[in-house]
Amino acid sequence: MNLPSKYHFKITISVLSSGRESPYFTLMSNKINSKSKMKRFLRYLKLSFFTIPLLAAQQDKPIRVIFFGDSITQAGVRPGGYIVKMGEMLEKQGLKDKYELIGAGIGGNKIYDLYLRMEDDVLAKKPDVVIIYIGVNDVWHKASHGTGTDPDKFVKFYEAILKKLQAANIRVALCTPAAIGERTDFSNQQDGDLNQYSQMIRNLAKKNGLPLIDLRKAFLDYNLKNNPNNDEKNILTTDRVHLNEVGNQFVADEMWRILKGM
Amino acid sequence: MNLPSKYHFKITISVLSSGRESPYFTLMSNKINSKSKMKRFLRYLKLSFFTIPLLAAQQDKPIRVIFFGDSITQAGVRPGGYIVKMGEMLEKQGLKDKYELIGAGIGGNKIYDLYLRMEDDVLAKKPDVVIIYIGVNDVWHKASHGTGTDPDKFVKFYEAILKKLQAANIRVALCTPAAIGERTDFSNQQDGDLNQYSQMIRNLAKKNGLPLIDLRKAFLDYNLKNNPNNDEKNILTTDRVHLNEVGNQFVADEMWRILKGM
Amino acid sequence: MNLPSKYHFKITISVLSSGRESPYFTLMSNKINSKSKMKRFLRYLKLSFFTIPLLAAQQDKPIRVIFFGDSITQAGVRPGGYIVKMGEMLEKQGLKDKYELIGAGIGGNKIYDLYLRMEDDVLAKKPDVVIIYIGVNDVWHKASHGTGTDPDKFVKFYEAILKKLQAANIRVALCTPAAIGERTDFSNQQDGDLNQYSQMIRNLAKKNGLPLIDLRKAFLDYNLKNNPNNDEKNILTTDRVHLNEVGNQFVADEMWRILKGM
Amino acid sequence: MNLPSKYHFKITISVLSSGRESPYFTLMSNKINSKSKMKRFLRYLKLSFFTIPLLAAQQDKPIRVIFFGDSITQAGVRPGGYIVKMGEMLEKQGLKDKYELIGAGIGGNKIYDLYLRMEDDVLAKKPDVVIIYIGVNDVWHKASHGTGTDPDKFVKFYEAILKKLQAANIRVALCTPAAIGERTDFSNQQDGDLNQYSQMIRNLAKKNGLPLIDLRKAFLDYNLKNNPNNDEKNILTTDRVHLNEVGNQFVADEMWRILKGM
Repeated sequence: MNLPSKYHFKITISVLSSGRESPYFTLMSNKINSKSKMKRFLRYLKLSFFTIPLLAAQQDKPIRVIFFGDSITQAGVRPGGYIVKMGEMLEKQGLKDKYELIGAGIGGNKIYDLYLRMEDDVLAKKPDVVIIYIGVNDVWHKASHGTGTDPDKFVKFYEAILKKLQAANIRVALCTPAAIGERTDFSNQQDGDLNQYSQMIRNLAKKNGLPLIDLRKAFLDYNLKNNPNNDEKNILTTDRVHLNEVGNQFVADEMWRILKGM
Repeated sequence: MNLPSKYHFKITISVLSSGRESPYFTLMSNKINSKSKMKRFLRYLKLSFFTIPLLAAQQDKPIRVIFFGDSITQAGVRPGGYIVKMGEMLEKQGLKDKYELIGAGIGGNKIYDLYLRMEDDVLAKKPDVVIIYIGVNDVWHKASHGTGTDPDKFVKFYEAILKKLQAANIRVALCTPAAIGERTDFSNQQDGDLNQYSQMIRNLAKKNGLPLIDLRKAFLDYNLKNNPNNDEKNILTTDRVHLNEVGNQFVADEMWRILKGM
Repeated sequence: MNLPSKYHFKITISVLSSGRESPYFTLMSNKINSKSKMKRFLRYLKLSFFTIPLLAAQQDKPIRVIFFGDSITQAGVRPGGYIVKMGEMLEKQGLKDKYELIGAGIGGNKIYDLYLRMEDDVLAKKPDVVIIYIGVNDVWHKASHGTGTDPDKFVKFYEAILKKLQAANIRVALCTPAAIGERTDFSNQQDGDLNQYSQMIRNLAKKNGLPLIDLRKAFLDYNLKNNPNNDEKNILTTDRVHLNEVGNQFVADEMWRILKGM
Repeated sequence: MNLPSKYHFKITISVLSSGRESPYFTLMSNKINSKSKMKRFLRYLKLSFFTIPLLAAQQDKPIRVIFFGDSITQAGVRPGGYIVKMGEMLEKQGLKDKYELIGAGIGGNKIYDLYLRMEDDVLAKKPDVVIIYIGVNDVWHKASHGTGTDPDKFVKFYEAILKKLQAANIRVALCTPAAIGERTDFSNQQDGDLNQYSQMIRNLAKKNGLPLIDLRKAFLDYNLKNNPNNDEKNILTTDRVHLNEVGNQFVADEMWRILKGM
């Protein structure tokens, strides 16, 4: 390569994403007036041809979101589930490649179960974001199995999970448990506990400066408008707990409102 | 006794009660124009001297009220208890002799227990009025013993009790279970069930045309005004369930408002 | 009718049942030596033509047996169920017409439910024998719904049922609840309670002089011989509670051993 | 110091413990034939005068034993408690200085609580031995609070505790939960679960090669001999669960049998 003895380079590397070009890296060389300087510069340049694709790859890597929860989340990845619906929404908005949505829900899970399986099911997958949606079974299993979660233990194990996620620099959003029964006069058997445990989650979000997806409140507000007969199901749920089609879309919307800002 | 041959009697018997005199019995004889008629009349009169005191006694017999319930009612007959307080209120109003207040509360009782002991503890005592105050343990024992009462069975056994009381011509008032925890945001563990079982009792009162003492509603209204910190106790209760001094007076007032009209 | 002036009648009425003829009624008249006596006798005879068929009908009426219980008994009238199997056994033994077997089992029933529906489902059907098979849900619902039955209430309502059945001259047999889990080392969760409630039923049988069908003991004995791996199901049950084919036959046999002697 | 020019030292340091002298450290010098060598040796010797007492101190340090459990262990450090009794036993046997017994029991604790507080209450105290005595509340709270421990979670959190203790080179012994009720015919309500959870603990001990203090079995054996009336308490417990004087001595004996060999 025959180069003039005095010159400088300007190199601009742009990232093309979603049809838009945005400058990623600009290099303006000093005036290069010696052979050795030039050689060094060219060496850097060559190096950059290998590293830039890596950087670009990293730039293109979608945000990995893990939905960490119970049977409601387990059903979220089935056709019509709230995670599937969220994926469809992203596709319509041309954001399909920006996010990778991973369901990590197991039926019957309580906060203890999330704690026990978080290494394998969350940390090992190196997510950028984790949305924790737990609490229904912690309350429900008191009556149905005698093995619900004490309030103090719910908070302590929740905190232990948050600590580990934050230590791994993972962004976290917290959901309140939506409903066990959709009656709006607080006459569903578990309403007292759901209100209490939801408040504990709100406090955890506040204390840790984390975004909150307050499904409990959102479901109640929706039912106050759309459940005039005070029915216990079939508004947002099929069986008082698990989401019907409207419910899946509703949860997808509520989660996306928070997720897009994370 | 020397009587004129033609005359008639007018006899008026009055009842003196609470300082007021009200006519109880008036007898105007026909014109008596024969000795035999007179004798017969005098015989009746003599008889009446024996029977009138009996009638008067019956008139003076206080209204017997049985308070039929659980530990809250059991505590109601202790110093400062709501039944004792109601007795004091009656005394101040000069109605002490008009009512006989009998506590029939046993700790831990559920609707099943009331059903089982109603012959001995209620019917055998021939009350005029029964105030049923039950439901806390039907709900609470679900979590504390695993032996709470199914909603359908609560209604069926309650109805069986009402049927027997009404068959014995006993007037009945129904109370809703006030509270297990005084927090006003429906975050007390048993709020869902207490709301549901209270509604079932309201429906029973309505269906059977019986007066309702809606302690559940009254306690909540009171706490909304007087429990700004959302405390779980020490407003009307000592321990989330049993009444403190204010609570005992509050229940006495609520019950008397209904009882005086029965 | 032209009759000799001196004679007597001998009338024998036999009952034909299951191919055997047994004398039911024998009448030997005195020597009839007057017209009036004869007339009187003939009048009696005529009367008997109307009454004997009634007596015969009563004789032929099968023993009506009601099986009063929960889902295990509800399944007993399905193909392969223990009541169906008992019917087949009776048929083989030529006793089909001697017994009428009626299932009165409802899933989820506890002693309270039997008490509430005994008028409609038992007394109204005027059975000769009632076999009570209850207790599994009284114990199980403690853990699964929080609405199990307190031991004292189990005994009191059981006694109330026995009292009503005995007042109606109905013969009664009592069953102990067989199993919730078939492990033989008493490590099934409800073993403690099943043992306790079974003992209460044994005491009730003894105290009231009633036959006992001790399924709890029989199942354990059978499992000790036939469940070497200490499995929790699939020996006599399909799911730890409800009977498989062997279990249905086993219960039919156990019940018949007692029923045939009642 | 005037020393011969050729010589060697033999130094023996003995440890005096419990009245016995045992050689701890023996040093036989080479033949010392130079001044510099001698000086060096003397320097070492001087050093040893400072270090040996430290070594000796370490030798004398008692074995630190932490009793890690619930209210039964919390009561163990009160007068007459099983830990106090064990201390008295050690004193009688002249072993008082060999062991340091530390109670770490908190009322109502379940396996989750032990897991949560093991850093502060166990690891931070650097014990040599930990005796884990847990399980009663894991079973009992199913019925009394609806917040018992699922069997799978009991095992998983127990294993997590064992893993952390073993990582810290702490010797561990496992106890089975003795009793909730002393009846010997397995008719105590929680017998099924206590048998199951005890078996899980036996399996954990076996799997991890750890000593087992099988209090469940020991209590049953004792009661079979000493509880002829099948009483539910007052043999080894005061209230079906907590130890009476005989019970405290019994547990102290059972634990010492295992502890002395650890």
